[in-house]
Amino acid sequence: MVGSVGAELEVSPSIVEMNGKVETNGKVEPLPEEIVPVIPIVLAENGANEDQKVIREIVLGRNVHTMSHAVTEPEADDEITGEREAWMASVLAKYRRSLIERTKNHLGYPYNLDFDYGALAQLQHFSINNLGDPFIESNYGVHSRQFEVGVLDWFARLWEIENHEYWGYITNCGTEGNLHGILVGREVFPDGVLYASRDSHYSVFKAARMYRMDCEKVSTLISGEIDCADFKAKLLRNKDKPAIINVNIGTTVKGAVDDLDLVIETLKGAGFSEDRFYIHCDGALFGLMMPFVKRAPKVSFKKPIGSVSVSGHKFIGCPMPCGVQITRLEHINALSRNVEYLASRDATIMGSRNGHAPIFLWYTLNRKGYRGFQKEVQKCLRNAHYLKDRLRAEGIGAMLNELSSTVVFERPQDEEFIRQWQLACQGSIAHVVVMPSVSVEKLDDFLNDLIEKRKTWFQVGKVQPSCIAVDIGNENCACPQHK
Amino acid sequence: MVGSVGAELEVSPSIVEMNGKVETNGKVEPLPEEIVPVIPIVLAENGANEDQKVIREIVLGRNVHTMSHAVTEPEADDEITGEREAWMASVLAKYRRSLIERTKNHLGYPYNLDFDYGALAQLQHFSINNLGDPFIESNYGVHSRQFEVGVLDWFARLWEIENHEYWGYITNCGTEGNLHGILVGREVFPDGVLYASRDSHYSVFKAARMYRMDCEKVSTLISGEIDCADFKAKLLRNKDKPAIINVNIGTTVKGAVDDLDLVIETLKGAGFSEDRFYIHCDGALFGLMMPFVKRAPKVSFKKPIGSVSVSGHKFIGCPMPCGVQITRLEHINALSRNVEYLASRDATIMGSRNGHAPIFLWYTLNRKGYRGFQKEVQKCLRNAHYLKDRLRAEGIGAMLNELSSTVVFERPQDEEFIRQWQLACQGSIAHVVVMPSVSVEKLDDFLNDLIEKRKTWFQVGKVQPSCIAVDIGNENCACPQHK
Repeated sequence: MVGSVGAELEVSPSIVEMNGKVETNGKVEPLPEEIVPVIPIVLAENGANEDQKVIREIVLGRNVHTMSHAVTEPEADDEITGEREAWMASVLAKYRRSLIERTKNHLGYPYNLDFDYGALAQLQHFSINNLGDPFIESNYGVHSRQFEVGVLDWFARLWEIENHEYWGYITNCGTEGNLHGILVGREVFPDGVLYASRDSHYSVFKAARMYRMDCEKVSTLISGEIDCADFKAKLLRNKDKPAIINVNIGTTVKGAVDDLDLVIETLKGAGFSEDRFYIHCDGALFGLMMPFVKRAPKVSFKKPIGSVSVSGHKFIGCPMPCGVQITRLEHINALSRNVEYLASRDATIMGSRNGHAPIFLWYTLNRKGYRGFQKEVQKCLRNAHYLKDRLRAEGIGAMLNELSSTVVFERPQDEEFIRQWQLACQGSIAHVVVMPSVSVEKLDDFLNDLIEKRKTWFQVGKVQPSCIAVDIGNENCACPQHK
Repeated sequence: MVGSVGAELEVSPSIVEMNGKVETNGKVEPLPEEIVPVIPIVLAENGANEDQKVIREIVLGRNVHTMSHAVTEPEADDEITGEREAWMASVLAKYRRSLIERTKNHLGYPYNLDFDYGALAQLQHFSINNLGDPFIESNYGVHSRQFEVGVLDWFARLWEIENHEYWGYITNCGTEGNLHGILVGREVFPDGVLYASRDSHYSVFKAARMYRMDCEKVSTLISGEIDCADFKAKLLRNKDKPAIINVNIGTTVKGAVDDLDLVIETLKGAGFSEDRFYIHCDGALFGLMMPFVKRAPKVSFKKPIGSVSVSGHKFIGCPMPCGVQITRLEHINALSRNVEYLASRDATIMGSRNGHAPIFLWYTLNRKGYRGFQKEVQKCLRNAHYLKDRLRAEGIGAMLNELSSTVVFERPQDEEFIRQWQLACQGSIAHVVVMPSVSVEKLDDFLNDLIEKRKTWFQVGKVQPSCIAVDIGNENCACPQHK
């Protein structure tokens, strides 16, 4: 199919005609306020409970296609009448209003929604793409590697690794960080067994499946921390194979921080020397908060860990998901020496990479600095305690891990209430993650609403608060039996 | 580590103090115009030539850390003096100027840099995240699923599959589309062998390695198309195992379009019935152009294909990389029924997903429509022919595949020239991808510059144009032997 000189340029009109017929009668559907609920799924971003038998079939929502904002073919005279532009502007204006409303009433997900990147709006006109490796020049000039490397250096310092000893990149989200960290682990130990607590983010188990790795799911304590007794038992069962461990620096549901030092101790106690294990730290949210909390087990490359990932859209806040991945350069070299592995010197998971995200991160890190983050961490922890204390005072079962701003409590009875406050739920529990954008005033609004609604849920003779002792411990439960 | 009621809030001041010492002497480094070149790598986003022996060790650029825009700790009085804000504004203004310059002089990558999303700037204030499955509601309300599904429906129609029969999502880039398509193929046929032509995008081979799949690399014709004779031979060698095939709807380097119909015919001829193969179409760039070109082999789900992916930042144009992935719903159900696979009903690769990208795509699709894309495709093909014809008239070896807007020609002698025009190169060839943002005027500027420079490269007695017949065929080569 090599074209001859002067080959005729034929462009098929068929599809346009075909679509013209269908589309040009196009009455615009009234705007839906929201997509119609399809399956009441909870905590889509969470490590789910495997024990709950759920039907896994994906059912396309009955009306999801008609309730969406369909793309329609422009009329021939649209440019003249301006009707299409007006219609699109109205869709967007309405959407923006719903975003404002939704942003205001958000409590369940660990996203800091409080940011102002007005100064960066000027960059939206450019197709900024850091394709490939941040440290290897590309001929594509519209990139932001100079910002990306600045951000990476900041994190390298936070996690105590020298500039010439680390490799990393800005990812698309926490999941990409976990996929990368575990892949590096597998390349270092091709026959390694992956260990992760059952409260790990679901992307960890997704990785095991994708990469065809043996995986041991380790029990957790009530707090959500990895149970190192069970971990040791499972290590001993696989003594002949190297260990790849996912350590949670903040689990998704309970905000529990695995004790990194105890994990390392357990490995050594089970006879695993440092050349026979690889630790990936999933620091999605708390990876950025822990360094500022006293008594927190320190995440540091001075310890025998292989990689750390953290999300950028969580504690920092960013218009789109992103994350930071840092690993040891020696591991990346081991990986990229694998002939045919990368077919280029690109050791990232994605090829093309969002070049705007590093600039957002650079902007916030520069404005806030270590000191600014410290203040925000302090505020979040304080407000989380306030929330937990008030819930308990109202007789609502609630738990807050010491190093966490995630308040776990009994799941509200009403799905509408859950949706209204955008709570993340799992089984019988729900949680609020207290982020910098969550003020005491917002918590009061939430508490007042909850207390009011509970009066109708728990009228005399009606349902009783359910027992959640198995999730948060007897001492935190407020059910009739435990309170 | 479950916190007791009223646990003391201790926030560690150590890191701030430590950093305060290092950072508060912070003289700001003069602004680098660009990152210092590290390794002259070419075509980082390309299927690279495995035969070229390259050192794969990643070398951190000597000065990459100091030449980057470091993040520095704010001074205590920064908010009062406004000095930090002024410094950041100046960094950004300078960066913006370089982006304008870089965007203007860009020819090598298949990105449409010509877009205006001013109307969407208002949305940058929101943390829009379509976490998980586009068709399953999440409790996180700040999403754009209603736009995402609208965009997916548009592509489903383009590729001829009913709304209730497809599943898909907006990805972060073409690589994610390939990773997803090949993963679905592997889940359908766990012991399947992956076949891909050697000109396939490197992400295809990355997937094979990640997923621990057997992979057969198939030869290509001079045009860059898959060689179906070699394909058949390799199929026959693995007759007992199902086949998973990556079909290129536009290869990265030569813009060659694999003949989908011939691939299917070859499979059947080798004894593979439809229940024993899975075809993923990598339509990164041309997936959106082909439907508008007469005589192009049609990409359609009416044929026995499993999935199609296309990039959103290429022909459509988008500030950040993104892509569209469409597959058959039945495959996704097979995949998500795998217990423990997803640990949620999320069948995407990434968990958190950029909610802005679908809105950018929705905006452009609505404005341009099928008709608008048709016009742009026509213009690109016309301009690509113009470029090829002028190169040949100047005695420069050049090739243009019939269904393509990628003009392949002899690699310019000068790296500075390559960088100036941001050409993508591989071995002895370079290419220009004629996108909607590449006008005849821009091509003329480029041609004039090239012709001028060649006078100094090819003075009498100096180097001769190298022979690239092996890359583009004898008839297209302009070396002394072939011209």
